[in-house]
Amino acid sequence: MPRYDTVAIIGVGLIGGSIGLALRRRRLTKTIVGIGRRRSSLAKAQDRGCVTKTSTSIARGVVEADLIVVCTPVEQIAEQVIEAAACAGENAVITDAGSTKEGIVHTVESAMLALENSEAGGPQFVGSHPIAGSEKTGPEAARHDLFKDRVTVVTPTERSDPAAVAKIEEFWQALGSRVVRLDPYEHDQLLARTSHLPHLVASALAATTPGNGHSPTLVGSGWSDTTRIAAGDPEIWKQIFLANSGHTLSALTAFETLLKTWRKALESADGPLLLALLREGKRQRDAVGS
Amino acid sequence: MPRYDTVAIIGVGLIGGSIGLALRRRRLTKTIVGIGRRRSSLAKAQDRGCVTKTSTSIARGVVEADLIVVCTPVEQIAEQVIEAAACAGENAVITDAGSTKEGIVHTVESAMLALENSEAGGPQFVGSHPIAGSEKTGPEAARHDLFKDRVTVVTPTERSDPAAVAKIEEFWQALGSRVVRLDPYEHDQLLARTSHLPHLVASALAATTPGNGHSPTLVGSGWSDTTRIAAGDPEIWKQIFLANSGHTLSALTAFETLLKTWRKALESADGPLLLALLREGKRQRDAVGS
Repeated sequence: MPRYDTVAIIGVGLIGGSIGLALRRRRLTKTIVGIGRRRSSLAKAQDRGCVTKTSTSIARGVVEADLIVVCTPVEQIAEQVIEAAACAGENAVITDAGSTKEGIVHTVESAMLALENSEAGGPQFVGSHPIAGSEKTGPEAARHDLFKDRVTVVTPTERSDPAAVAKIEEFWQALGSRVVRLDPYEHDQLLARTSHLPHLVASALAATTPGNGHSPTLVGSGWSDTTRIAAGDPEIWKQIFLANSGHTLSALTAFETLLKTWRKALESADGPLLLALLREGKRQRDAVGS
Repeated sequence: MPRYDTVAIIGVGLIGGSIGLALRRRRLTKTIVGIGRRRSSLAKAQDRGCVTKTSTSIARGVVEADLIVVCTPVEQIAEQVIEAAACAGENAVITDAGSTKEGIVHTVESAMLALENSEAGGPQFVGSHPIAGSEKTGPEAARHDLFKDRVTVVTPTERSDPAAVAKIEEFWQALGSRVVRLDPYEHDQLLARTSHLPHLVASALAATTPGNGHSPTLVGSGWSDTTRIAAGDPEIWKQIFLANSGHTLSALTAFETLLKTWRKALESADGPLLLALLREGKRQRDAVGS
């Protein structure tokens, strides 16, 4: 098990708060600095025991940290990683928990290359994405077991320092997560299908469905399951869609093409085609399990 | 609470089996006859305590029943209601549990009018749809509380006997269900949006999503929730889509139109439009609750 003297968590919502709870539950560090803009969120995270101290300044908050985890919304991550790298000790490793990776990793690596950080030693960044979450948000929803038995994708590139990659993988494993290594492009392409398109579809379905006042009483568990993630934070998801619009559009095209086949099957009352479509959906669903 | 001497259940899968368990748990009847074609399913239902006796013949199975509930797949229901009505005692009431209503109710009423059953007294039919279910099937999955706190739609028409309607509503209420009365057309139109389109979407999403061997490890709870109902029985759902293709196509059109707006928002990286779409999906989802 890795041990840390000080871990800094930038952004103490559901993910950042859960990292803090998991670190403390496993006694992996003495000090956890929660860093954020809003004092009220920081106070909530400290009250819940997610962090041991707080700061509204990245520069002051990260200075003692040997591990820094950036858990803010996607649009803020690259800039905050770069700011943290400029202020952190030279042996610090930095990762993030963003749902998209290519843009973040590219921006951070370009900036670090400009600073010649990689060649001069200094803090190292490796991107991460823990595939764990909830439609709930905020430190109130944080759970010490959020990452247990879940997958975390770690996305090193050819520029990554192998020792830093090993440290970041060890960190997620210490929280109970299984680590899968992918390059950032491949991560975004896959997540467009397994996460971003499903969110888009759940949202569009929820918005389409009601049609009149009867519906709330007439929805069954099927509707509720299928649309659950549409309750997620619109601002967070807007940023994910903007950061991964290309791959999401490709996934959407594949989905719309299949809907055309469904339309044809319904219009022509084609029982065998409907059965084939339903069987393929079931086959793919059953292959993944509950 | 209503009391029955004998209830006949035609089709002892998840729904029929659960009706049997619920009737026995509440001690509403002495005898429950399970009727089906396959002796193996009937034996399973009897072993689980869903029924007290079994028959492979509708004619013999319904003859003593004061209440008959047809719980077979949609395509078989109308024919079996008509067969049951021909053999049942003159005070029997008959209902079904089919997920579509217009075709079934129309076919049964036309046949009964031809038999002059309605005018001559005799068994009366009123359509029902308990909005309760699972992606699991068979009497193994039956639960005595499947209908508790769920809605059952009852679909009388102007030809229905008011006393029979009251009896059928009282039956579902006795199983713990809340009854909503709709006409068959309105039922099918609403369910196309709240159930049939969501099933189509979940199936198409499950079929679209994977794309390669990594996916099973990279799906989160969001994908799992959104596609859960795609695991339902393809044959059952094929019949539902064929019986309600018109309304399902209308719902699909509304959904595809919204997807076009999503496409436009992604293609033009339109943050405010993405945010508006996500907020509307969240608003509708939150209005229904968990």
